[in-house]
Amino acid sequence: MKKPKYSLGLDFGTSSVRALMAGVDDGREVAAAVHDYESGHSGILLDPADPNLARQNPADYLNGLGAVVKAVISGARKAEKDFDPGNVIGIGVDTTGSTPLPVDRRGVPLAMKKEFKKNLNAQAWLWKDHTAFAEAGMITELAGRDHPEYLAKCGGTYSSEWFFSKIWHCLNVDPRVFDAAWSWVECCDYIPAALTGAAAPESIKRSRCAAGHKAMFSRAWGGLPAEDFLNRLHSKLGDLRRRLYAESFPSDVTAGGLTAGWARRLGLPAGIPVAVGAFDAHMGAVGAGVAPGRLVKIIGTSSCDITAWPNEIDLPDIPGLCGIVDGSVLPGFWGLEAGQSAVGDIFNWFVSYIRPGGASRGTHEALTRKAMRLRPGASGLIALDWNNGNRTVLVDQRLTGLLLGQTLHTTPEEIYRALVEATAFGGLAIINRFEEYGVRISEVVGCGGIAEKNPFVMQVYADVLGREMKVARSTQTCALGSAIAGSVAGGRERGGYEGFLEAQAAMCGLKKKTFKPDPSSRAVYGELYGLYSTLHEAFGAAKWTGSLFHVMKDLLAIRDRQRKGRR
Amino acid sequence: MKKPKYSLGLDFGTSSVRALMAGVDDGREVAAAVHDYESGHSGILLDPADPNLARQNPADYLNGLGAVVKAVISGARKAEKDFDPGNVIGIGVDTTGSTPLPVDRRGVPLAMKKEFKKNLNAQAWLWKDHTAFAEAGMITELAGRDHPEYLAKCGGTYSSEWFFSKIWHCLNVDPRVFDAAWSWVECCDYIPAALTGAAAPESIKRSRCAAGHKAMFSRAWGGLPAEDFLNRLHSKLGDLRRRLYAESFPSDVTAGGLTAGWARRLGLPAGIPVAVGAFDAHMGAVGAGVAPGRLVKIIGTSSCDITAWPNEIDLPDIPGLCGIVDGSVLPGFWGLEAGQSAVGDIFNWFVSYIRPGGASRGTHEALTRKAMRLRPGASGLIALDWNNGNRTVLVDQRLTGLLLGQTLHTTPEEIYRALVEATAFGGLAIINRFEEYGVRISEVVGCGGIAEKNPFVMQVYADVLGREMKVARSTQTCALGSAIAGSVAGGRERGGYEGFLEAQAAMCGLKKKTFKPDPSSRAVYGELYGLYSTLHEAFGAAKWTGSLFHVMKDLLAIRDRQRKGRR
Repeated sequence: MKKPKYSLGLDFGTSSVRALMAGVDDGREVAAAVHDYESGHSGILLDPADPNLARQNPADYLNGLGAVVKAVISGARKAEKDFDPGNVIGIGVDTTGSTPLPVDRRGVPLAMKKEFKKNLNAQAWLWKDHTAFAEAGMITELAGRDHPEYLAKCGGTYSSEWFFSKIWHCLNVDPRVFDAAWSWVECCDYIPAALTGAAAPESIKRSRCAAGHKAMFSRAWGGLPAEDFLNRLHSKLGDLRRRLYAESFPSDVTAGGLTAGWARRLGLPAGIPVAVGAFDAHMGAVGAGVAPGRLVKIIGTSSCDITAWPNEIDLPDIPGLCGIVDGSVLPGFWGLEAGQSAVGDIFNWFVSYIRPGGASRGTHEALTRKAMRLRPGASGLIALDWNNGNRTVLVDQRLTGLLLGQTLHTTPEEIYRALVEATAFGGLAIINRFEEYGVRISEVVGCGGIAEKNPFVMQVYADVLGREMKVARSTQTCALGSAIAGSVAGGRERGGYEGFLEAQAAMCGLKKKTFKPDPSSRAVYGELYGLYSTLHEAFGAAKWTGSLFHVMKDLLAIRDRQRKGRR
Repeated sequence: MKKPKYSLGLDFGTSSVRALMAGVDDGREVAAAVHDYESGHSGILLDPADPNLARQNPADYLNGLGAVVKAVISGARKAEKDFDPGNVIGIGVDTTGSTPLPVDRRGVPLAMKKEFKKNLNAQAWLWKDHTAFAEAGMITELAGRDHPEYLAKCGGTYSSEWFFSKIWHCLNVDPRVFDAAWSWVECCDYIPAALTGAAAPESIKRSRCAAGHKAMFSRAWGGLPAEDFLNRLHSKLGDLRRRLYAESFPSDVTAGGLTAGWARRLGLPAGIPVAVGAFDAHMGAVGAGVAPGRLVKIIGTSSCDITAWPNEIDLPDIPGLCGIVDGSVLPGFWGLEAGQSAVGDIFNWFVSYIRPGGASRGTHEALTRKAMRLRPGASGLIALDWNNGNRTVLVDQRLTGLLLGQTLHTTPEEIYRALVEATAFGGLAIINRFEEYGVRISEVVGCGGIAEKNPFVMQVYADVLGREMKVARSTQTCALGSAIAGSVAGGRERGGYEGFLEAQAAMCGLKKKTFKPDPSSRAVYGELYGLYSTLHEAFGAAKWTGSLFHVMKDLLAIRDRQRKGRR
């Protein structure tokens, strides 16, 4: 009997690193382990004087890696008596991003050098660091004027969370760190480079996902933004360009083989192929079975809405999408990324900040129990899901929440339901945007905490989106996606796969329980979405002019009809 | 030494009747007593099958009257050893309204007759009864088409709460009661008629306040709406017109003298003059010292905003006002009535229905304590005060609440403050409407529970309205207003007054503590009111078209400025 093969997925999150040992045959999750980062507050280095700052200690990544892989191997030994580390055929890596860190000529993070150890600017600049908002604004302005193509595939606005904003901000606030940095690498490039010993910056195989979504990289204009353009930001950024990278790779490319040193440390054979890294959400989509026509919706505090489209088909720019990058999700396909700035965070805000319903009655569970008994439209309420701005399709952080239709009898559960519906309407706006530009979405696969744990939200989504909602079988789709990349890195000769589609077909799955749209709810939500769209345009679109006189009246008419229907 | 004179004010509310014994010299409140109505739920007869229905048992009025007057006399004896019922020189009466009741040929309420005792349609139709909404719509339509002048002085919309809507509805649903009724009298007419023995409907001196504000009465078209017009509603309403009234009177007119029977029952001398009745809010304005240029704002669950203007000055129709009636507040002056459909009810909704802040921390007191520490505009929130529709200036029940500007960090106290501010903005919209049509408002006198007990709300009102907020000295301005009417009914020969202005000068007063606008808050509220007005028009005006893109952005800009200011 052939011994089973395994693939190791490594998922570096915001507060911890997770390892998943997956069976290559069928994607079964043999064992998983999690290790929390040691530094800072839940792994984040903060500056009490600046709420925008969020950094990470790169030593945490390597320490966590050592611990978590040993733990997952030990778990796998217990789970399957057949398990043998010698049969691990590949390793895949995903991380948060854009999380760039400055490195020296040999690829050593400045943060690991004595002189910079305590300097926050020498650490990894975590994705949610917003210190570079001014630089982001200037990049957006300059690119918008001189190189609109740079932004056309990433939503038209360059974010303070992204690669060049952060590097430029470092130059502006701490030139000593900037000058000491030979290059900057994304976290998802740093880990595979460390594991494979490809430490010198010029030898690192950079991630297409990070390059395309966060660093304005495209083959269409020869890679990163032109030196000329970067010079106009700052001559030192122009100089830096030559020390960054000229090419980037999807994750079916192998970064290299596991070094002997790491092999010893991890208890794995040396030389195991390690895939080029990618961002967690993108690998999560892979692990959830993303495919053309299938949208993966990772629903947590915010949402990440990812799909793929054959790259033989030329895609127009899709305004408002935060990314269209060739090969960023599935090699050979456009990776399309959209998202909502807040989903669960809005429900959490209502429960944790507003704390409705008096003592202990305003939990998510209690509100859900009551909200699910209500009929669509019967509250007369409608909300906008903009408490944290709007990522897709408006790409505007300067937007806020709205609740409309309150009477003297409006209850917390009615508001809770309206907030859930608002996030569903925001999701439909994203799907509609995809479809307007020719990217058909026929089914939606949910993953993330809310998709797994909240059938009420999933049913509302099915009714609002008008599509069957499925749920990914895995509860750790990011790590599973990385394991899929690892099984492709291993390749057929080692018992793995030739490509992502083949690997997904074997290793991904869906839960049995799905959520089908209810026709009568669907019809009411059609009307309510019309009103949502009106408010969306009225408050979100600079050019909109129109009348809103009908909005409250229409909501009352729907309410009265839906309440009568109940009696 | 001259013995002090007294005037008795009787105030018939929704759940109880209050009696106030006031000193005629100085308006001092010698004693007061309250008696709860016996019937129904807190004095209201309900129909479980129809939430619109609210009736009252007229026997409760008379029983309560007997009890409450005896109690107030006993209280007055204790309070002033000089007190002598023989020195009560007059009686004034105010009641809720429009609260019409069907009476027989001799003025006896049908509700007091055996055959109708249990018939809800034979009782008093309490002001808040909304069963006649269909009839109100038809009256509005017909008057709008054929007699727009009928509605021009009462806001352009005939309400389901008003006289003819209710009578017509009675005809439609219970013709037996309608046919048995010789006439219909307002509660504020019924009480003085009962006390003075002017029982036969044709001998009752009807209240100008009730006639003008609720029954489309005006001398300009010869009294009540033309028979012709009423015939078009129903021929029986045309017939009824002749059995209603041809004249109406302000409250400086005397309805008659206290009958011997009532005198015995109450322990007062027979023949004491009883003033023509009026509605409670209007008498409340009198008791708070209403005068030209001075707006009285009765701030409770809803608001009633009343002022007066010399009737030598011809007033244009003021769109949106619910009433402009000659002599309805002060004889010789236009009485102008406006109001907000909900004020305290909105705060109560937030506290009682939403119950924010977890256990026992979301009380009005706790929220107020925190909300008063916030700076204007620092939350980024704005709200519309329409949870119960908009009475003035839009006259539209089919409007609902709106809250805008929420983030993931918005707190209950920020929302509470935004709701308070919204009611202040709604108040400013009323004042601005008055002034646009030439009725100047230079100061505002608050009365009612919120004005007396909530300095935070009063300060916000001063800052938003841009006017000094004063508070009436009396906590029972309605009963005091009626006592003022009683002192005028008594007349100079009995030690009272010749007219209302003279009586007010002696008997009304203000609290020492006033609330002055803070210039810097005032400036921010000027900006916020601009945004409130934009939303007010966008959602409330049929003809508005425009852009709202700036609203959230302006709020964030104000917020960021106001927060920076604090540091």
